[in-house]
Amino acid sequence: MTDTQVAKVVGAVREDRLWQRHMEMAAFGATPRGGVNREALTPEFTQARQCLLKWTSMRGYTSAIDAIGNLFIRRSGTDPTAAPVVSGSHLDSQPAGGKFDGAFGVLAALEVLDALSDASVATKHPIEIVDWMNEEGGRFQPTTMGSSVFAETLPLDTVLATADREGITVETALAEHLTKINTDGIREFGFPMAAYLEAHIEQGPVLEATKNTIGIVTGIQGLRWFQIEVTGEEAHAGTTPRANRRDALAAAVEMIETLHLFMFDESDTVRFTVGRLDVSPNSPNTVPGKASFTVDLRHPDAEVLRDLGDHIEEICDAHSGDCEVSVTETITSAPTTFDPAVVGLIRKAAHHQEFPAMEMISGATHDAKSLAGLCPSGMIFVPCAGGISHNETESATPADLAAGSRVLAEAIVSLANA
Amino acid sequence: MTDTQVAKVVGAVREDRLWQRHMEMAAFGATPRGGVNREALTPEFTQARQCLLKWTSMRGYTSAIDAIGNLFIRRSGTDPTAAPVVSGSHLDSQPAGGKFDGAFGVLAALEVLDALSDASVATKHPIEIVDWMNEEGGRFQPTTMGSSVFAETLPLDTVLATADREGITVETALAEHLTKINTDGIREFGFPMAAYLEAHIEQGPVLEATKNTIGIVTGIQGLRWFQIEVTGEEAHAGTTPRANRRDALAAAVEMIETLHLFMFDESDTVRFTVGRLDVSPNSPNTVPGKASFTVDLRHPDAEVLRDLGDHIEEICDAHSGDCEVSVTETITSAPTTFDPAVVGLIRKAAHHQEFPAMEMISGATHDAKSLAGLCPSGMIFVPCAGGISHNETESATPADLAAGSRVLAEAIVSLANA
Repeated sequence: MTDTQVAKVVGAVREDRLWQRHMEMAAFGATPRGGVNREALTPEFTQARQCLLKWTSMRGYTSAIDAIGNLFIRRSGTDPTAAPVVSGSHLDSQPAGGKFDGAFGVLAALEVLDALSDASVATKHPIEIVDWMNEEGGRFQPTTMGSSVFAETLPLDTVLATADREGITVETALAEHLTKINTDGIREFGFPMAAYLEAHIEQGPVLEATKNTIGIVTGIQGLRWFQIEVTGEEAHAGTTPRANRRDALAAAVEMIETLHLFMFDESDTVRFTVGRLDVSPNSPNTVPGKASFTVDLRHPDAEVLRDLGDHIEEICDAHSGDCEVSVTETITSAPTTFDPAVVGLIRKAAHHQEFPAMEMISGATHDAKSLAGLCPSGMIFVPCAGGISHNETESATPADLAAGSRVLAEAIVSLANA
Repeated sequence: MTDTQVAKVVGAVREDRLWQRHMEMAAFGATPRGGVNREALTPEFTQARQCLLKWTSMRGYTSAIDAIGNLFIRRSGTDPTAAPVVSGSHLDSQPAGGKFDGAFGVLAALEVLDALSDASVATKHPIEIVDWMNEEGGRFQPTTMGSSVFAETLPLDTVLATADREGITVETALAEHLTKINTDGIREFGFPMAAYLEAHIEQGPVLEATKNTIGIVTGIQGLRWFQIEVTGEEAHAGTTPRANRRDALAAAVEMIETLHLFMFDESDTVRFTVGRLDVSPNSPNTVPGKASFTVDLRHPDAEVLRDLGDHIEEICDAHSGDCEVSVTETITSAPTTFDPAVVGLIRKAAHHQEFPAMEMISGATHDAKSLAGLCPSGMIFVPCAGGISHNETESATPADLAAGSRVLAEAIVSLANA
């Protein structure tokens, strides 16, 4: 493929079409406040996929689905034996989510396919769009469910048995969904891919603040979640002397304050969050008998993450006073490093197209994390307003979305002709 | 009245009868875990009063009720013009309360009346038992409702219009209650009393820990309640750098930790409690946008209470970081000092009867607080196991309850012949 051909494809990426499709897709599950409520396997999610299949079948692309409901849409290549270059993200949203988180990755991949078709450019490898099932994990836990089952890091049986708050299992919801989604074929988990690329809004404030259009994502930070339970004793707030109290909230407050100080780093790389704290009985005139809180700790460096996380129990113990404390690690996820060759292609495309770009680590988890162990993988970020996502006010500009799609197009075309 | 007569009355206080009545009373609203659920104006509360009226009418005592449902039961004196000496507490309980909180004060007063009757001793002043309506404030807020209306510190109209969680007003519930309670007469608010005495379990651990049987209560500590609202901004826990966060919980934690340090006093007299803390959205991977907490601050010294409470807003402001904070004082109650002559009588009776006794301040609020502004008032405390109350495991011994009743008997007889 010549540079002229790449330029033709990149030039065929249409900002207006890409934006219009975001707006049409956002109609499925649209909320009064301008957001999207399109949780996995709901009727709105099914409608969104039907719309995607309508657009893609019109262009002659073929579709397939796997046993956990991941949807693949293929534009054929010239070499029938070549593994596909796959790109996509997810059409499901948070219950009070936005128009761009996930949808952008799917629609950007579609824009690349349509640009190739409009420019009448063939590729050696087939190119596939993927819509991973249930990335958000709101209705059915955990997050990145479809891509994890695909990568066989989550067992299918367990996942199918997982129920939502109303007791509906993934198995039941998926069976219902499949009656309304007609695909040309079925796919196996972990089928060979030449590469995987995912475009996404940053979900953080860095690109906007530094006036960069493209985030060249070099990896996804690692994560450790902890649940801390502090047990003291309920007592009357008016009559119980301080010396006789076993105040679970007072102990928890001291632990959290100490953890904040311990996690402080000058470079502001550590992500340490106590997002949830529950107090019992939570009555103004009763000394709390129980307090429980969560820790969400993230860092791109595996060793730093291990070291910081391993200190949490020790710090909680040291500040438990007369209370008892238990620290349980509930989720552990190692940092991901994306393939240097893929990262290099994205960097090259961004520079070539003269977009202001920077390398960055993804703070959030994405389906690309599941894929990184299977094939050369990478991600492209574009800015979102105020770094806000998982929120109905989530916003991105047509120009930035198009820029991300053009960089994606160049990287995909390179990979699909390698 | 001679010392012999006092000894006769004190000797006529029957530990077995007093204990048996506590057990019979605890049957009304008995919970499976051995506690009592007998909120104000419920059917169980009405049954408890019917039982009390059955016991007292058998002895020829007369009954009367006022417009907020406070119940008075009188044993006549020899001087028809003399104001009554009044003693009692409340038969209503917490929703998961115990057998002794409130009931003891009513049954101890009844025991004094019956001891006088059994000993055939007449007094100059009439003596009345009072059962104040809704001391606990669980079903209808606020606490000490009946005694506050009696003392005209709460307006009757407002209180009658107060609704419970099901929308039933005090007026409706009281009207229903009155169809089932037959009294001999009605009473006016604030009628003259010669004195008011209230016996109660301590609801704290001090008497038990110091092996004292009698608490000579010199006053009730003052109280100030505050509601603190901290507003930051929700953000993604994985993507938002520390420098960009406005973490409402982190700010609240720093405020609470600082307040604990500020409120520390060597003498352990300050009662400082953060009993309630609510976080929003309270999700492990979202930086909290809101955190609100309560402060319950108590101290027997009005000046110290004012000074400590007045620093709360300043401390919260200083530790709000990039968040906004509002501090609202929701309840203010000045300390109460009981009448020195009444306190002296209780001290004398405890010493005379050779009970180990100590002077103390009440940490909890009681109906006696409302009465202290109307007539010479005082309180007698007895130990409760582990200092635990407002709990189904609340416990006291028959001997301690009898000791409290005997001290009460001596003090009442002295006052009723003054």
